[in-house]
Amino acid sequence: MRNILIIGIGAGNPDHMTVEAIEALNRADTLFIPDKGEEKAALRALREAICARFIRRPDYRTVPVDIPRRAEAGSDYHGAVDDWHERIAARYRALFETELAEGETGALLVWGDPALYDSTLRIMERVAASGLALDWQVYPGISSVQVLAARHRIPLNTIGAPILITTGRRLAEGVPADQDSVVVMLDGEQAFTKLDPAELDIYWGAYLGTPDEILIAGPLAERSAEIASVRAEARARHGWIMDTYLLRRRPA
Amino acid sequence: MRNILIIGIGAGNPDHMTVEAIEALNRADTLFIPDKGEEKAALRALREAICARFIRRPDYRTVPVDIPRRAEAGSDYHGAVDDWHERIAARYRALFETELAEGETGALLVWGDPALYDSTLRIMERVAASGLALDWQVYPGISSVQVLAARHRIPLNTIGAPILITTGRRLAEGVPADQDSVVVMLDGEQAFTKLDPAELDIYWGAYLGTPDEILIAGPLAERSAEIASVRAEARARHGWIMDTYLLRRRPA
Ligand SMILES: C[S@@+](CC[C@H](N)C(=O)[O-])C[C@H]1O[C@@H](n2cnc3c(N)ncnc32)[C@H](O)[C@@H]1O
Ligand SMILES: C[S@@+](CC[C@H](N)C(=O)[O-])C[C@H]1O[C@@H](n2cnc3c(N)ncnc32)[C@H](O)[C@@H]1O
Repeated sequence: MRNILIIGIGAGNPDHMTVEAIEALNRADTLFIPDKGEEKAALRALREAICARFIRRPDYRTVPVDIPRRAEAGSDYHGAVDDWHERIAARYRALFETELAEGETGALLVWGDPALYDSTLRIMERVAASGLALDWQVYPGISSVQVLAARHRIPLNTIGAPILITTGRRLAEGVPADQDSVVVMLDGEQAFTKLDPAELDIYWGAYLGTPDEILIAGPLAERSAEIASVRAEARARHGWIMDTYLLRRRPA
Repeated sequence: MRNILIIGIGAGNPDHMTVEAIEALNRADTLFIPDKGEEKAALRALREAICARFIRRPDYRTVPVDIPRRAEAGSDYHGAVDDWHERIAARYRALFETELAEGETGALLVWGDPALYDSTLRIMERVAASGLALDWQVYPGISSVQVLAARHRIPLNTIGAPILITTGRRLAEGVPADQDSVVVMLDGEQAFTKLDPAELDIYWGAYLGTPDEILIAGPLAERSAEIASVRAEARARHGWIMDTYLLRRRPA
């Protein structure tokens, strides 16, 4: 039996590590550090900084994981994701077998919280289903959504009302009429610029928790173009961007 | 000017404190500890345990905050909440004025994450609006929803799909047809027992993060009665309960 610790590391600020996550890091024999290619070098750097700062023994062992690229989704989005996850699971299985002895413990450092738009837990299910004797535990981490709310000093919900967390792709269908608080992640298309902005406020954040953090808030009608141009400029300058926002309907 | 640190402390497990939250605790001159009456004594105990464990100077100063009770909502839910928040804000304002000198820093320890079904941020807006010169910063904390997902080792969303976070009161209207992942908080009425359970799985957790944690998962049709009775028994034994759950629609 091998054991894997799935550790939420926060979304950019190492100070968002929890005491539990730090202890988990220190229990691992080997840390698997995914490498998704050039544009995510900043993310890899954060993972490495976290290891260097929080792991107490100086000789800890890291193994890079060369994550296969996802095929262009085309018409079959779920099929493409399914195939991609299967290839990632095969990669992890091979690494667990060669890099961890029976009875040893590995760690996977997950961006933000492992429960939010992250496939690590589904991939662990696949590795286990492939027949490798495996156990794993999950440690929550501060998500980008929480940092967004904290930095804007706002609650995610209005009193007694629900919160919808969705993707840019889904938001393109519009803000559901019965939702007054919609958090949007994974929006590469600036779906907010295509909405009817009437009655909506936006609270936007990029590079949340990092020294490059950008925050913009206000009526969507007034901020939409500004956010789009700040975003384009920052993305060009850094070579990558991660941004999240809350849309809130103003009370009638 | 007085400064207030709004610190998310996690939902029951002191190890969920972040490095940032611990540093914030240590910057406060005075900690304001809400006391909502008998049934929440366990919560107050956790706040006190966190202070004792993480604050480095031995002579830190705490001030209890006697939170007024909310009037029964009757027909005017929003009016009752509004009136209640106004009374809480007045209480905090009075305490900030008498217990913090100009230039001093206070801290409020918030259960879970301050952005999720918590009124502290709205109350700070009210205190500031009442004319007291005030600044405040918010530090995210691990929420009960994240602990629920971590302990059940599940993502909150299915691939590319949205997550709805709602209350027991709202769930009574049914699981929206276009949602496959619904997180329910603040459910004192076991709204899950009144749903059509077809196609739904439930992942339920009570006292999450604490030594009394209870986890139950499975098809709602098979688990609904069991959860209701385990919940009633635990609530009677402890004198209080906090529970949260995810409803997930099984793929067709
Ligand atoms: C694959 S999801 C992972 C989310 C992550 N598990 C979390 O809890 O934040 C990536 C999306 O999260 C958001 N995100 C992650 N880190 C962010 C950051 N530091 N600032 C802004 N948005 C971020 C962006 O919307 C991005 O498209
Ligand atoms: C007023 S809300 C506060 C939520 C809190 N801010 C958070 O981030 O978890 C209280 C609700 O949170 C959930 N909750 C809080 N702590 C919990 C725990 N330890 N176990 C299970 N549910 C919890 C329950 O649904 C409860 O009714």
